[in-house]
Amino acid sequence: MTNQILVKSVVDTLREQGKKIATAESCTGGMLAQLITSIPGASEVFDYGIVSYANSIKQDMLNVDEEILNTYGAVSEQVATAMATGVMKACNADIGVGITGIAGPDGGTIEKPIGTVYVCIATPDSQNCCRLDLGECCKNNRSKIRDKAIYVVLDLVLKSLFNV
Amino acid sequence: MTNQILVKSVVDTLREQGKKIATAESCTGGMLAQLITSIPGASEVFDYGIVSYANSIKQDMLNVDEEILNTYGAVSEQVATAMATGVMKACNADIGVGITGIAGPDGGTIEKPIGTVYVCIATPDSQNCCRLDLGECCKNNRSKIRDKAIYVVLDLVLKSLFNV
Repeated sequence: MTNQILVKSVVDTLREQGKKIATAESCTGGMLAQLITSIPGASEVFDYGIVSYANSIKQDMLNVDEEILNTYGAVSEQVATAMATGVMKACNADIGVGITGIAGPDGGTIEKPIGTVYVCIATPDSQNCCRLDLGECCKNNRSKIRDKAIYVVLDLVLKSLFNV
Repeated sequence: MTNQILVKSVVDTLREQGKKIATAESCTGGMLAQLITSIPGASEVFDYGIVSYANSIKQDMLNVDEEILNTYGAVSEQVATAMATGVMKACNADIGVGITGIAGPDGGTIEKPIGTVYVCIATPDSQNCCRLDLGECCKNNRSKIRDKAIYVVLDLVLKSLFNV
């Protein structure tokens, strides 16, 4: 199932449930927001997306704690969670998504190689976070890593909406 | 020239000139940010993008004046300008881009039919705004209108960087 088909299901389901989603993206750089808004009528379910590429923006616009950034690094479960909850709260959305990772070709380390992406799906009552290791399956290709991360996020959002 | 080729020129030129760009998108929904960040090393020239789909987000996050929104409407030169300057100032960028329009299939009026898009390229010293009428050339196709708007924006940014 392609991202374009999956996002249609996400937008349709949000609409049916009367819910709104907000997005905070780092490595995917707006790809999720762009996909959501590619669906006609997306304004019913989407008010706000932010591309917080710099750490300063994560702090200033999403209230991500400097200590969290310094302690765990920008590419971490803690920062993905803070991004997701930050954007959700900023616009009173029902679901917030945070994505932060290393799409390459630079920036990889032994602990966090290229393709390491942390995603978090937050609701007012829950936070579902996970680490994706996409380097191998995407052959360290920047474009493929971003696409695959979005696929996983859309799938997680859909599962969250159906409480699976 | 496709958007993917044009955005490479934009990112390369920004890098050469040591400048940063910030984006505020409404109808294009993150497409510009996504394209910029598709280029490896984009973090040198891009810190912050915002998808301000709802008017409340334009007000709260970009300081777009409520009076401007009420007087001219969200799809207007005035709002595109306020979005461009708002996002530029928020992260001290050298160039701010504002895009607001009607991608359809709904939302068109006689004065502002589907395909009406206002774009603004702002620098600390200048504001270059224009209205695009993309409905006819894009056959009112949402996806084509968004793509074409991005093409025009990238071309305007490039011209701005070279003071053409």
